[in-house]
Amino acid sequence: MKRFEHIRHKPPAPLANPRQLTLVCSALRNKVNLSRLVRLAGCSGLDKIIHCGAGKVDREIARDAVDVVHIETHRSLPPVLAWLREKGNKLIGLEQTTNSDCLYDFHFPQMTALVIGSEREGLSDEVLEMLDAVIEIPVYGRPYSHNVVTAATMAVYEYCRQFPDG
Amino acid sequence: MKRFEHIRHKPPAPLANPRQLTLVCSALRNKVNLSRLVRLAGCSGLDKIIHCGAGKVDREIARDAVDVVHIETHRSLPPVLAWLREKGNKLIGLEQTTNSDCLYDFHFPQMTALVIGSEREGLSDEVLEMLDAVIEIPVYGRPYSHNVVTAATMAVYEYCRQFPDG
Repeated sequence: MKRFEHIRHKPPAPLANPRQLTLVCSALRNKVNLSRLVRLAGCSGLDKIIHCGAGKVDREIARDAVDVVHIETHRSLPPVLAWLREKGNKLIGLEQTTNSDCLYDFHFPQMTALVIGSEREGLSDEVLEMLDAVIEIPVYGRPYSHNVVTAATMAVYEYCRQFPDG
Repeated sequence: MKRFEHIRHKPPAPLANPRQLTLVCSALRNKVNLSRLVRLAGCSGLDKIIHCGAGKVDREIARDAVDVVHIETHRSLPPVLAWLREKGNKLIGLEQTTNSDCLYDFHFPQMTALVIGSEREGLSDEVLEMLDAVIEIPVYGRPYSHNVVTAATMAVYEYCRQFPDG
């Protein structure tokens, strides 16, 4: 008997509670990056992404997630961040900054709005000023920073690891 | 004074020991996926990737990592996996299979060869039979599986979290 056999189309793991993680993205220049984030969100049990700017998604990349992840578009982030805070979310940015917390040691609040920067500029000063915490991922080589989706993937993974049941 | 200020071009975190994680990739169809893995490897302090098949990399995606991550190409994986095992590595696959371990609970051996499947077929039966363990990442929604690079990103992150100093 084979020890490891493929399980194709394995049904998703159930969540005891709906995910209380909201992904909030600055204006991404690259449609591929947004589409990859949509697939990440779908696989992670999120039902929406907040995006600053037009939310064009490539179905080839996002797959079925295009049907389950709603993209809520806004012209700028500060008003929606203020609204998320009012609803009880902590605003957690992902960036290389002073006074950041290492993702390895960070305990996510269950109601987290994870705020992602754009490819080149990262998070704006205006957004940085609104945040409750900044998390940072150690980089051990070159280039000196992860791709924005790669970094978001690590942060979403860490959140799900801390809240495996939602 | 601003609490969070950007740190641009932050120098990499030092490793006390060279990384003992080897990334081993089945033949990836998509040059973009391989290029993204190269950037992930570079940022994570790995100095090579083993790839089955031609290793064309897009510098726009992999960035500086093309200069520091060597791509070792092989015609098939089983011989190189046998060699890696002989050198003391545990062969850890990333796949949805029977008898898999959840990535959340898995303790990586320090000398790990992380074996990644191709986009459609995943890991071949021949490779699955050689593995010491299979790790699996919970999926909570649709689509029913993560993109191969997204999954690899989570596994590499988890390894680095467990061995933050190499």
